[in-house]
Amino acid sequence: MPASYAYLGPEGTFTEVALRTLPEAATRELIPYVSVQSALDAVRVGEAEAAFVPIENSVEGGITTTLDELVAGTPLMIYREVLLSITFALLVRPGTKLSDIKTVTAHPAAQPQVRNWLKTHLPDAVWESAASNADGARLVQEGRYDAAFAGEFAAARYGLEALETEIHDAENAQTRFVLVGRPARPAAPTGADKTSVVLWQRDDHPGGLRDLLGEFATRGINLMLLQSRPTGAGIGNYCFCVDAEGHISDRRMAEALMGLKRICLQVRFLGSYPRADVRPEEVRPLFPGTSDEEFAGAADWVARCQDGRF
Amino acid sequence: MPASYAYLGPEGTFTEVALRTLPEAATRELIPYVSVQSALDAVRVGEAEAAFVPIENSVEGGITTTLDELVAGTPLMIYREVLLSITFALLVRPGTKLSDIKTVTAHPAAQPQVRNWLKTHLPDAVWESAASNADGARLVQEGRYDAAFAGEFAAARYGLEALETEIHDAENAQTRFVLVGRPARPAAPTGADKTSVVLWQRDDHPGGLRDLLGEFATRGINLMLLQSRPTGAGIGNYCFCVDAEGHISDRRMAEALMGLKRICLQVRFLGSYPRADVRPEEVRPLFPGTSDEEFAGAADWVARCQDGRF
Amino acid sequence: MPASYAYLGPEGTFTEVALRTLPEAATRELIPYVSVQSALDAVRVGEAEAAFVPIENSVEGGITTTLDELVAGTPLMIYREVLLSITFALLVRPGTKLSDIKTVTAHPAAQPQVRNWLKTHLPDAVWESAASNADGARLVQEGRYDAAFAGEFAAARYGLEALETEIHDAENAQTRFVLVGRPARPAAPTGADKTSVVLWQRDDHPGGLRDLLGEFATRGINLMLLQSRPTGAGIGNYCFCVDAEGHISDRRMAEALMGLKRICLQVRFLGSYPRADVRPEEVRPLFPGTSDEEFAGAADWVARCQDGRF
Amino acid sequence: MPASYAYLGPEGTFTEVALRTLPEAATRELIPYVSVQSALDAVRVGEAEAAFVPIENSVEGGITTTLDELVAGTPLMIYREVLLSITFALLVRPGTKLSDIKTVTAHPAAQPQVRNWLKTHLPDAVWESAASNADGARLVQEGRYDAAFAGEFAAARYGLEALETEIHDAENAQTRFVLVGRPARPAAPTGADKTSVVLWQRDDHPGGLRDLLGEFATRGINLMLLQSRPTGAGIGNYCFCVDAEGHISDRRMAEALMGLKRICLQVRFLGSYPRADVRPEEVRPLFPGTSDEEFAGAADWVARCQDGRF
Repeated sequence: MPASYAYLGPEGTFTEVALRTLPEAATRELIPYVSVQSALDAVRVGEAEAAFVPIENSVEGGITTTLDELVAGTPLMIYREVLLSITFALLVRPGTKLSDIKTVTAHPAAQPQVRNWLKTHLPDAVWESAASNADGARLVQEGRYDAAFAGEFAAARYGLEALETEIHDAENAQTRFVLVGRPARPAAPTGADKTSVVLWQRDDHPGGLRDLLGEFATRGINLMLLQSRPTGAGIGNYCFCVDAEGHISDRRMAEALMGLKRICLQVRFLGSYPRADVRPEEVRPLFPGTSDEEFAGAADWVARCQDGRF
Repeated sequence: MPASYAYLGPEGTFTEVALRTLPEAATRELIPYVSVQSALDAVRVGEAEAAFVPIENSVEGGITTTLDELVAGTPLMIYREVLLSITFALLVRPGTKLSDIKTVTAHPAAQPQVRNWLKTHLPDAVWESAASNADGARLVQEGRYDAAFAGEFAAARYGLEALETEIHDAENAQTRFVLVGRPARPAAPTGADKTSVVLWQRDDHPGGLRDLLGEFATRGINLMLLQSRPTGAGIGNYCFCVDAEGHISDRRMAEALMGLKRICLQVRFLGSYPRADVRPEEVRPLFPGTSDEEFAGAADWVARCQDGRF
Repeated sequence: MPASYAYLGPEGTFTEVALRTLPEAATRELIPYVSVQSALDAVRVGEAEAAFVPIENSVEGGITTTLDELVAGTPLMIYREVLLSITFALLVRPGTKLSDIKTVTAHPAAQPQVRNWLKTHLPDAVWESAASNADGARLVQEGRYDAAFAGEFAAARYGLEALETEIHDAENAQTRFVLVGRPARPAAPTGADKTSVVLWQRDDHPGGLRDLLGEFATRGINLMLLQSRPTGAGIGNYCFCVDAEGHISDRRMAEALMGLKRICLQVRFLGSYPRADVRPEEVRPLFPGTSDEEFAGAADWVARCQDGRF
Repeated sequence: MPASYAYLGPEGTFTEVALRTLPEAATRELIPYVSVQSALDAVRVGEAEAAFVPIENSVEGGITTTLDELVAGTPLMIYREVLLSITFALLVRPGTKLSDIKTVTAHPAAQPQVRNWLKTHLPDAVWESAASNADGARLVQEGRYDAAFAGEFAAARYGLEALETEIHDAENAQTRFVLVGRPARPAAPTGADKTSVVLWQRDDHPGGLRDLLGEFATRGINLMLLQSRPTGAGIGNYCFCVDAEGHISDRRMAEALMGLKRICLQVRFLGSYPRADVRPEEVRPLFPGTSDEEFAGAADWVARCQDGRF
């Protein structure tokens, strides 16, 4: 097993910054890849132990490239998540003034986060998309564009300076990243865990999706993300990426997943892993009747009834 | 263990006729008791191996005395059920003519089944309740009443004759009887089984009862009887006697009962036993995703996911 | 319109006592009838303006004779309800001692309420059913039985004395009575109202009854009584008598009833009337989104959307 | 009101081709805009009567820019939808051979549809994103890139030739476009209609989203699209863009929208308009109890009950 993590490069992006917050990253070689697809493929073919990629941000929602890679192809599993607050700096070649800027660049995902700032401060600047924010910075270094939106940490690497920092549109703009590996036993539950699955409906009838969500609801499980993704079978055909509170080793979650497995056309388990947004002591209390003890007690009782001992 | 069955007597009632349809009755001593309560108490204290009592009829609904005895006190279990079509004969002392009849008697449960006949043929006759239909026949024999409604089979025993037979109001009037014993392992599933439970809600909020029934519905289990019974805690406080299609060893039923056990204040298991109304080959097909195979497959899949093998 | 109320007689029963608590009873002639059926028929044929009959008690549950009369036949409507605490006195001919009592009588509905008292104090007394508690008292007066369970108020009328009072089994034993008339506009809502309906399912499939109760639950309406009654079409065929919190002029109730009307085979409206158990200021708060104002606001909004004005 | 339609330009894109399939487009001036945002803003400020933009494609799913523009800002309404099958041509300057191609360009939305073709035929070509497919073609004309993926119809306009046509990944790749205007009365129902709304949950509790979808399900309404979009209030905060079968003037849809309005934090109506995927005669039959006639009948019945006439 190679002791390396693939990540969405190039170096100097938010992804790398987020990855370095994981203690286990300190002992691995971190290798940038040009795309989410290539980073995940590196894991699939065994070139890397795991890949670190963005999966959701608070402005754009689920990152569809990542979701689509996890939904299809050889199964992978999520082992960790990291939340990173995102603010942009406007990076320019030293000496450039705001009034000199005719062209700006960044990854398309940055656009909604800097749109309002641009409208106010550079209403006439022409936007061109870059393959990544770091790549945008490189293109500014090369003189192709006048300015790039990127993390402030990228300035030094590309010999640029930050004309403006803390640019962001939505309050608390955050990106969620995940560490993805080949299937293996999930990390032990911490008390503040999240389970990710992909669900394909058997058919679409009134109430079909409601019944599917009911498998979580009737066991008191809260949903954190519901993202539809097209199945490729034409307009209106979707599968659903769901993040739910809890761990597959929680009995309520195990039973909910069993229920989904029975009523769905297909279910893909994407992992159970510690939540980055709350600590175990901050998790809200369980719904009555949904604790492991209550599940175990109920199973015991049914077993005793099956035996006639009660 | 005494090889005797208690039954709601006296001899010569529909209950005895129904009991004698059970093959196992041929090898037991059959002992009449004066009330449902005393017959069930005989089982509770070990005087009888089992008791045979009416529990539901198609005109009156659930027989509340029996339900209330099963709901409270030392737990008992249902092992068999018998359906019997009920038609009454009008029994009189030999020589009595219709026009001679001023008073009629029978068990109160017979009243709705003969009400219309009475209105047409004996509009002026005075009704008095008897402790049982057979007891009514005895009282006619003794000269206390002029006529009794009872099973035609009772005429010979009490030296009476049937002035009229096949009296019944509703088409296909039937009574359901159950054989009740102390808790033991339920009979093996036959493919056409019924499970009886009593449910007490934790509290009454909008949707409380709906959610409780949802534990059956989401596992594709059909309900056959839902009978509310007061808990004794005042007007508006009810528990629910439920008969559901299936056997506690069916995985869908076991999981539904587990769910109920978790969300109810209390659940009392009253047994899983063969249905008297249909044969296994007549049972309607299961809902998709609710067979034992699908439950087992889903549990397997979750176990593999918990292990990272998929 | 005759200014008379029929009631379940004879005089001197709990029913008469309950009826006299209604202010409007003071201005009507109160006429006892021998049965619930005959009292309701008096209303149906126009002999009486309304009938006053017991419908539910906290020990026996729904009173099936009354429910069945309301479920079938010419439609009637409930206009008022009365709750009465029930305790029995043991009435005997003057001079009778407890040790003299060999036979006791009362209406069958009294039996569960005095059963434990009997077991303790008169374990060997023989029970015979009477047509009513007052009739039982009359039969004691005539010397046919030794003692009758009845309301203490019945002693004087029949020349008996109360050997024991305050006999009851369950704490707070209560009976609910209703005043029933021909269909007319329901009383105006008071803020603490109840609506009674009878529901017939279109077919029985898993979830059928759950969906039916869901029409109430999704509008935040709490159920107070759910009593199944056989439809007469054979074992397992039931209709459901439901009491729900609220008035048909509440928009949430009107919409729930519309929903039931659409999905049920049949719905019978039995009336909206003031609750006897709570005053308007004691009614629990509505579920969010279910007040008349919110319904009206939502209807307004949809109308504006239909018009393109928003 | 200006007789002009704004559309996502430049000229020569799939959007223009789709727009020209609408009969009403023939009588309007069609004006290309550089972005979805600017086209919709043209409508908002009254520069254009309507805007025509892509909203969903069978490969990428909901087009988030368009959804986000409809979700926020001054309300707009959808009046028409168009479905267009999408296949790409590889456009090059005359004389270019496949082996000459080092760089390719197109709008990012094209990437997933040509990804596999690229991997097979041009594994080493470098991809650069263009603002639109037509703009990519223009950049090829200018010599900035070697080839562009675009509709075959764009070749002539930019003096290019199609080296390959019918390139697409998913079978039946389609894009759905909508014609968006300022709020006005929706088009009359055709019998095959769709209603689009945006829903914001009041809070997130287990079952919250299920209950919300239940407002459609309990009225027999099928969902066609459920797309979550971040609300901007941080990771995990989503609103839901829903397309449902039916028209706001259908009583089942009106009642479902009322229900959503009552239980949601906010609901935005985006219009009811004819479906492009089926004709009225192909629409599947309604669920029992959900036709306009049944709604009207039920409302009538409730009104009669409120009046005591039944």
